[in-house]
Amino acid sequence: MASTVVQVMRRMAGTAGQVIRCKAAVAWEAGKPLVIEEVEVAPPQAMEVRLRILFTSLCHTDVYFWEAKGQTPLFPRIFGHEAGAIVESVGEGVTDLKPGDHVLPVFTGECKECRHCKSEESNMCDLLRINTDRGVMLNDGKSRFSIRGQPIYHFVGTSTFSEYTVVHVGCAAKINPAAPLDKVCVLSCGISTGLGATFNVAKPKKGSSVAIFGLGAVGLAAAEGARISGASRIIGVDLNSNRFEQAKKFGVTEFVNPKDHDKPVHEVIAEMTNGGVDRSVECTGSISAMVSAFECVHDGWGVAVLVGVPNKDDAFKTHPMNILNERTLKGTFFGNYKPRSDLPSVVEKYMNKELELEKFITHEVPFSEINKAFEYMLSGASLRCIIRMDA
Amino acid sequence: MASTVVQVMRRMAGTAGQVIRCKAAVAWEAGKPLVIEEVEVAPPQAMEVRLRILFTSLCHTDVYFWEAKGQTPLFPRIFGHEAGAIVESVGEGVTDLKPGDHVLPVFTGECKECRHCKSEESNMCDLLRINTDRGVMLNDGKSRFSIRGQPIYHFVGTSTFSEYTVVHVGCAAKINPAAPLDKVCVLSCGISTGLGATFNVAKPKKGSSVAIFGLGAVGLAAAEGARISGASRIIGVDLNSNRFEQAKKFGVTEFVNPKDHDKPVHEVIAEMTNGGVDRSVECTGSISAMVSAFECVHDGWGVAVLVGVPNKDDAFKTHPMNILNERTLKGTFFGNYKPRSDLPSVVEKYMNKELELEKFITHEVPFSEINKAFEYMLSGASLRCIIRMDA
Repeated sequence: MASTVVQVMRRMAGTAGQVIRCKAAVAWEAGKPLVIEEVEVAPPQAMEVRLRILFTSLCHTDVYFWEAKGQTPLFPRIFGHEAGAIVESVGEGVTDLKPGDHVLPVFTGECKECRHCKSEESNMCDLLRINTDRGVMLNDGKSRFSIRGQPIYHFVGTSTFSEYTVVHVGCAAKINPAAPLDKVCVLSCGISTGLGATFNVAKPKKGSSVAIFGLGAVGLAAAEGARISGASRIIGVDLNSNRFEQAKKFGVTEFVNPKDHDKPVHEVIAEMTNGGVDRSVECTGSISAMVSAFECVHDGWGVAVLVGVPNKDDAFKTHPMNILNERTLKGTFFGNYKPRSDLPSVVEKYMNKELELEKFITHEVPFSEINKAFEYMLSGASLRCIIRMDA
Repeated sequence: MASTVVQVMRRMAGTAGQVIRCKAAVAWEAGKPLVIEEVEVAPPQAMEVRLRILFTSLCHTDVYFWEAKGQTPLFPRIFGHEAGAIVESVGEGVTDLKPGDHVLPVFTGECKECRHCKSEESNMCDLLRINTDRGVMLNDGKSRFSIRGQPIYHFVGTSTFSEYTVVHVGCAAKINPAAPLDKVCVLSCGISTGLGATFNVAKPKKGSSVAIFGLGAVGLAAAEGARISGASRIIGVDLNSNRFEQAKKFGVTEFVNPKDHDKPVHEVIAEMTNGGVDRSVECTGSISAMVSAFECVHDGWGVAVLVGVPNKDDAFKTHPMNILNERTLKGTFFGNYKPRSDLPSVVEKYMNKELELEKFITHEVPFSEINKAFEYMLSGASLRCIIRMDA
């Protein structure tokens, strides 16, 4: 690892202000395998930084927009938004980062100036909030990627499936340079989303009971948050019973497959827990799971946290007495973490061995085989597949 | 006032353990005027206390169950649940109260033993939670009221429209004996419900914006809570524009009548506040107001609190993205106050002039004219009408 960084630093010297030619995995069409191409990466403009990506990982959101079922397709595009990177050069006005800094690029930003950034409670930055429809940089409405003059679109301001990328300075969290980027890169999105939903929003007390709906990577990260918080019962809910064995490693103590029961899952959980769990975290995006996650928390003190992104036409529907009986319903985005302010401390949780990241990393491929990462995810085989850019 | 108490204490001496004959306002039939009758009030049984009511006030809930539209009718019954009282005698096992103590009877109790009472977050006592269908005492399933041997039903464990009543010890909050019972009696129900919804649940910060849906007594108490919390904008929402003038006394700074606008009220409020209010409190029980109250809070940090009791068949319905965008929805019951633990401190807020109760008290009648209090409420003329038992 250390020698890789030295090599990278050497390679970076002298590239500032220049167009960099490097390899990137380009999605030319929806749902078609990515193609490794030589791309040109323009220098960073004002308030931008250019990053050398060392490791990136694949998240469902990449796959979702690559498949482009339902959304407006935007191609050719460079996907990728979970990564560990080193700053190669910085644009005008950037004072918070300098070449050589270790960063996690993040799909949503923190400008530190808007009402949301100034609020203690929100991380939904007005300027840099996730925008999946925009394929260009905010500064000039242009892409920094091109192939023989043809612009290639960005994705959520990160586009980490490239050896070099350009991001807004507000979308790069500077972290401890001692942290192994091939591990902490998974904190760029899904794992932090689940962890933060539990730590920052559900806030289970020691000894409490927590239900987690959906045992994919985000749900398991929510369970990991409950485990670290000292929850005594962590009930995993998933339609796929095969996921329970793996979930045990993340602290899940009991398993409910809604298909195994004739009654609604919130009633099953209420019976298991003498009236309901103390906290629940919904990580599937299914509207029925959202309603169940709310209705399965105990009256008087239960808190349900929604994480999964719903369909456009869904409606959340419940009897208002379920609310009146002193239940709380909250939604969260990126686990309520402010990317630049909070991610460094999540990395420290890993460094001090409180948070276990290795168990999320089930696969690893060289950049040249990035399409395998898509296959692993689509088949349900992987939680996180690390893509090594130098291999 | 002082001399009244002395007279009451004298009268109480020697009645312990005896049946007391006194006046009570009996509802013989749904919707028919109450009749002042001589009733017999049995001595308190184990864990019960018998109270001498000095002042009582009328709340919508009395009227709602007296009208008995929709609920199972239970008559003859003695209504009343907001009152200031003095303990006359105590039953076996009662150690927390003694004759002469000043108390506020409360329609929902605090046993101090159950999971809810032991939870910091809940006030929904398993044993003594409000039960509008029960007309008898928990201890033996019997009424303590009778007229020539005919039992008269209790109402929500309080039945304060009687010179004497019997309540469970868990339903009587001991308060500062210096507090004027003709004022603090209104803290037994509605005013505490609104105040607590703001203080304990919405928790607006100094300088924040708060929308209050419904400007009846509960809503105005929620506004009073926002005023005391230092909210800089308090937006009152009501279908009756005549209520705005009065609402100003409770800190309401702006008024919205949904009838005056073509667009949904949450959009009107979002436009007034650059995206939404920081907090909202719903005090009408109308399902459309509940949804508006939720959708009018700002994304990122907005908190909506539901207080008003919905209809049986209502459904709360919203797009889940409204939740995902970091809004919080909470329900509250009796303002999240634990009756015995917390009401004494609310009385102190009045005693130190932080909380203004006088402005809620718009009318006063002698006990013999209790039906006038119903008329004032039904015509919308009163916020609170105090009924003096000794007059």
